[in-house]
Amino acid sequence: MIKVGVVGGTGYTGVELLRLLAQHPDVQLLTITSRGEAGVAVADMFPSLRGRVALKFADPATAPLRDCDLVFFATPNGVAMKQAPELLAAGVRVIDLAADFRIRDVALWEKWYAMPHACPELVAEAVYGLPEVNRENILAARLVANPGCYPTAVQLGLLPLVEAGLVDSSHLIADAKSGVTGGGRKAETHLLFAEASDNFKAYGVPGHRHLPEIRQGLSEIAGHSVDLTFVPHLTPLLRGIHATLYARITREENFQTLFEQRFGDEPFVDVLPPGSHPETRSVRAANTCRIAVHRPQNGDTLVILSVIDNLVKGAAGQAVQNMNLMFGCDECAGLTQIPVLP
Amino acid sequence: MIKVGVVGGTGYTGVELLRLLAQHPDVQLLTITSRGEAGVAVADMFPSLRGRVALKFADPATAPLRDCDLVFFATPNGVAMKQAPELLAAGVRVIDLAADFRIRDVALWEKWYAMPHACPELVAEAVYGLPEVNRENILAARLVANPGCYPTAVQLGLLPLVEAGLVDSSHLIADAKSGVTGGGRKAETHLLFAEASDNFKAYGVPGHRHLPEIRQGLSEIAGHSVDLTFVPHLTPLLRGIHATLYARITREENFQTLFEQRFGDEPFVDVLPPGSHPETRSVRAANTCRIAVHRPQNGDTLVILSVIDNLVKGAAGQAVQNMNLMFGCDECAGLTQIPVLP
Amino acid sequence: MIKVGVVGGTGYTGVELLRLLAQHPDVQLLTITSRGEAGVAVADMFPSLRGRVALKFADPATAPLRDCDLVFFATPNGVAMKQAPELLAAGVRVIDLAADFRIRDVALWEKWYAMPHACPELVAEAVYGLPEVNRENILAARLVANPGCYPTAVQLGLLPLVEAGLVDSSHLIADAKSGVTGGGRKAETHLLFAEASDNFKAYGVPGHRHLPEIRQGLSEIAGHSVDLTFVPHLTPLLRGIHATLYARITREENFQTLFEQRFGDEPFVDVLPPGSHPETRSVRAANTCRIAVHRPQNGDTLVILSVIDNLVKGAAGQAVQNMNLMFGCDECAGLTQIPVLP
Amino acid sequence: MIKVGVVGGTGYTGVELLRLLAQHPDVQLLTITSRGEAGVAVADMFPSLRGRVALKFADPATAPLRDCDLVFFATPNGVAMKQAPELLAAGVRVIDLAADFRIRDVALWEKWYAMPHACPELVAEAVYGLPEVNRENILAARLVANPGCYPTAVQLGLLPLVEAGLVDSSHLIADAKSGVTGGGRKAETHLLFAEASDNFKAYGVPGHRHLPEIRQGLSEIAGHSVDLTFVPHLTPLLRGIHATLYARITREENFQTLFEQRFGDEPFVDVLPPGSHPETRSVRAANTCRIAVHRPQNGDTLVILSVIDNLVKGAAGQAVQNMNLMFGCDECAGLTQIPVLP
Repeated sequence: MIKVGVVGGTGYTGVELLRLLAQHPDVQLLTITSRGEAGVAVADMFPSLRGRVALKFADPATAPLRDCDLVFFATPNGVAMKQAPELLAAGVRVIDLAADFRIRDVALWEKWYAMPHACPELVAEAVYGLPEVNRENILAARLVANPGCYPTAVQLGLLPLVEAGLVDSSHLIADAKSGVTGGGRKAETHLLFAEASDNFKAYGVPGHRHLPEIRQGLSEIAGHSVDLTFVPHLTPLLRGIHATLYARITREENFQTLFEQRFGDEPFVDVLPPGSHPETRSVRAANTCRIAVHRPQNGDTLVILSVIDNLVKGAAGQAVQNMNLMFGCDECAGLTQIPVLP
Repeated sequence: MIKVGVVGGTGYTGVELLRLLAQHPDVQLLTITSRGEAGVAVADMFPSLRGRVALKFADPATAPLRDCDLVFFATPNGVAMKQAPELLAAGVRVIDLAADFRIRDVALWEKWYAMPHACPELVAEAVYGLPEVNRENILAARLVANPGCYPTAVQLGLLPLVEAGLVDSSHLIADAKSGVTGGGRKAETHLLFAEASDNFKAYGVPGHRHLPEIRQGLSEIAGHSVDLTFVPHLTPLLRGIHATLYARITREENFQTLFEQRFGDEPFVDVLPPGSHPETRSVRAANTCRIAVHRPQNGDTLVILSVIDNLVKGAAGQAVQNMNLMFGCDECAGLTQIPVLP
Repeated sequence: MIKVGVVGGTGYTGVELLRLLAQHPDVQLLTITSRGEAGVAVADMFPSLRGRVALKFADPATAPLRDCDLVFFATPNGVAMKQAPELLAAGVRVIDLAADFRIRDVALWEKWYAMPHACPELVAEAVYGLPEVNRENILAARLVANPGCYPTAVQLGLLPLVEAGLVDSSHLIADAKSGVTGGGRKAETHLLFAEASDNFKAYGVPGHRHLPEIRQGLSEIAGHSVDLTFVPHLTPLLRGIHATLYARITREENFQTLFEQRFGDEPFVDVLPPGSHPETRSVRAANTCRIAVHRPQNGDTLVILSVIDNLVKGAAGQAVQNMNLMFGCDECAGLTQIPVLP
Repeated sequence: MIKVGVVGGTGYTGVELLRLLAQHPDVQLLTITSRGEAGVAVADMFPSLRGRVALKFADPATAPLRDCDLVFFATPNGVAMKQAPELLAAGVRVIDLAADFRIRDVALWEKWYAMPHACPELVAEAVYGLPEVNRENILAARLVANPGCYPTAVQLGLLPLVEAGLVDSSHLIADAKSGVTGGGRKAETHLLFAEASDNFKAYGVPGHRHLPEIRQGLSEIAGHSVDLTFVPHLTPLLRGIHATLYARITREENFQTLFEQRFGDEPFVDVLPPGSHPETRSVRAANTCRIAVHRPQNGDTLVILSVIDNLVKGAAGQAVQNMNLMFGCDECAGLTQIPVLP
């Protein structure tokens, strides 16, 4: 059994991690911390976990994190970078679900995240936890930077095209729509039901923090600099990201076959038949990314549709997938739930 | 392995049954029928089942239903009563998720359901599949009438009070609110998103088919005639029933303790601590009923709050629970998923 | 033109007041205050008002409130009671949309609202602004306590029965469901989209502040003490309250006719034909209350269904109706918008 | 007073037309037809219109359509083209809210709409009713083809750029998201609440009927052939379209100023300040289009955000605006409602 700790279990990625870990056959949940809720039973805060998670939130200062084999950070940006060095030194492996270790260029990170980085030396070591790209590196990683939700949907959707060099990779467009849980469990006005329900808007068009992460990921895949226009939108869903991706074709290929072959062995990427339109609900509460490949009107622009559950393949599920790889479990262990539809 | 068939797999209770059965450790899914969709792959209709259910919808006329140990009917009212006799005669056990066998008084059934009953002789044999009341009878049943969604939430909420004879059982009130999937997967105008979203209404106030079922159930529990006012409402949820139950106290008791003791051994009924307000999402996609007991202002009226997922404990999950009992499986087999929150 | 000021224009009742006042033929909007947003253009905060409201939020300390004929308080509880005395002394009339002047028993108010009352002497003078009950008193009022949203829906639904003494008025039941804007525009976790969407729950069952207000109102109508069980619920709507009211008949009457006659001259109460189920969307964005009268199964329990838009007839619209009465306008002035459906 | 008839008043554009027309100062509503609902009071079907519309649905065969000055067709595609010739011959002017007269190339229309056109000779005469482009022609039109909802949002958002020839007009991208009322009031499974709620999907990616309409409109504006990739999406809103438009810059300009000047005199197009993100709710139930102009990261790709209410500026409101122009009313008559937010 893998002894697991979770730092910051009160947000949506935290409670989703708990849902997955509590059902994982190889995991012993050792401790969950929360500064604000220390002493409160987890199941009092999240009644969905009654009878399934017996732990109380522990104070981060006294929680037995060093006794864990693995610690997940489901914390705001800037927390993991302060605590990870000590845990790693103690032999504990770490998966950060926030952004602290996602961007290799520390100066770039500091610009987008508006704080100094606490341990730049670990950034180089950290492995970007997108198994479909980095599986081998994840197996041996001590420290995994779990990808952002938008970057997961966008990179998986563009991966085969960029990897094979078939499209104009300096003018990609990613029009992405996210459910509201993507904004976290924060008491902020714009996330209120009364603001977000029956409403649709773009946000962050001038620049969103996931832009440099996507650029970096696609550039590493391509082997050269890639650029894109990325527009995120808030849509009245609980869960789900739908990325609509536009790429100008520069070299002909059977694109459907390309996608099917690239992802043929991937347990969590499902390429739909030609003509399909994946729905976000078809992956609700599951670790799957479903993708459809379109070439409208047989023109020179490809349209790729890529959907994930932002809390699962876009966060907690992918983190568990990474854990499975790091600890030699079946990659699908604890991740076999069928999507909940309707 | 229990060889299982599903008649009518294209509605919401059908696809929910498939979700649960495909993950059940003791079940082999033999056939799924649909007159309208015969030949279509189940996963083409419900992409959430891609990679998990390989069957195609079979024509009911040729499907190997007689080779099954158990057949679920997830059909409209009036179908199971026509096909069950033959299956039972062939040694196949049957669980009907519709209403055909729920009402013992055949004349009353015919009045509310506006059709003649095709096999009144089986009505007497059928066991009403509410395990918290009828567990012993279910174990040996050939034919189980799976309860309605509202009746499940209402009966579980009132059970301890009516059983112990502590309230005025001739003037109970059940104010129940249901998500839209309770109406089934029918192309009807009033179930459209554009009609049901951002809208709330009562319906069926003059009389709803679940009224005689609740009356019968509570009367059997009480050992005498029980009457209630039942008002169902449509609320813009995908899943969930919230029953708010009002009962005038006729004899004092520690009601919280009563509920805790009555349901203490029940795996799927969770009595919340005093002062709680169960949320429908706390049981989303799970087979749990959560109940809270209130006595506002210390008056003479009890308020019981009872929530279920109408598609799980209110339909497919309870059917699987009944199957587990009928076939000697662990009662919780295939029903251990943690609720999906948020 | 009535010179109008609004104190606290940044909440949902505030912006709704602005929507109605900006279209009112007899109103000149003089000033809108907000401590937190002083200097910000109203239309920058609420783009729906671009081109329609040119004012900036003013600092309450310097806003020309004394130059107004009427000041609306769309503030949290406890604000109006501190500022109203001075305005009234200056000859300005006041409508408080919060609860400061709703409860005549100051000790009771202080218990439920957990603060000392700042001007008990004005409580006696204040007129409870439910025009269907108090129209004559409102005409001459200097200070109007605008009713709460739940109390409006519940009192209008029970008014004819309690007034005529036809039901057991010591055991009334009000099962009420509210949209999320009823909770105000506050950054609180339980009001987040991710908490309230696809979810339904009761709250405040042990006791809600609107209970004493409803009790007081119905008792005054009855001429004797009335008691009820009041259970509010949160439902995933933007706007709307649906009150389902249960009353045991003590004296026979043609209840449908009773309601039609009682409200026949009321411009904003619409009694539906027998057998109807009013939908909240049928009053969306309008000042109407729609009511249906049911006697299920011809038993001894009446079921009254009463719907309003909590922000209009339950708050800002009723306030404008009161203003119309106080200033001799047509009672419907500025309130003739047709509900927005769908 | 303009004597107005509405053919097909039972869909969402129909009831929205009624909402607007019933409040229009210059309109006398003479008749509303519905084959299926003839004899039913309009307000029985749409209780929001109780007390405001006294008409019953009339049989199309006997309705006094020829006595009208203007007839609106709020019918499925293919109806207006059969009835318009006779009405026009009788001197009645016609606005078709469906697609019958939108596409000048009759063969192209027949391909996309899969039926022969009943009166090709009128197609040439019909004026495309986008006032921001065709105001002069609308003034004198006998027959107006009211634009589709997507085409309205997309054309208004791209109009200044295409008109001025500043972008690569052969590779425009329109990623558009629509609320569910855009699909009409049809009892179809994919429009059910249980299918569309908490779900997001693209549809019609291979080709949507609004594509040729947008192409034609933009080409006429440009004076040469324009091409675009158009991807519509279904999002769980009642009302609202959000078009996210991507255009590669070919000539530098102050784009913000360009938009402000182009639409400066337009009563129903609102260009937001730089950096804005228009929300669909900011135009809910109003005839306004709000637009924001972005140039992310100062790159070579413009991102234009354009929002409308699909039932108002995208259908019924624009039709009333066209009527106002045709009959010499104030262009804003009957269209001054402030958007309903929240």
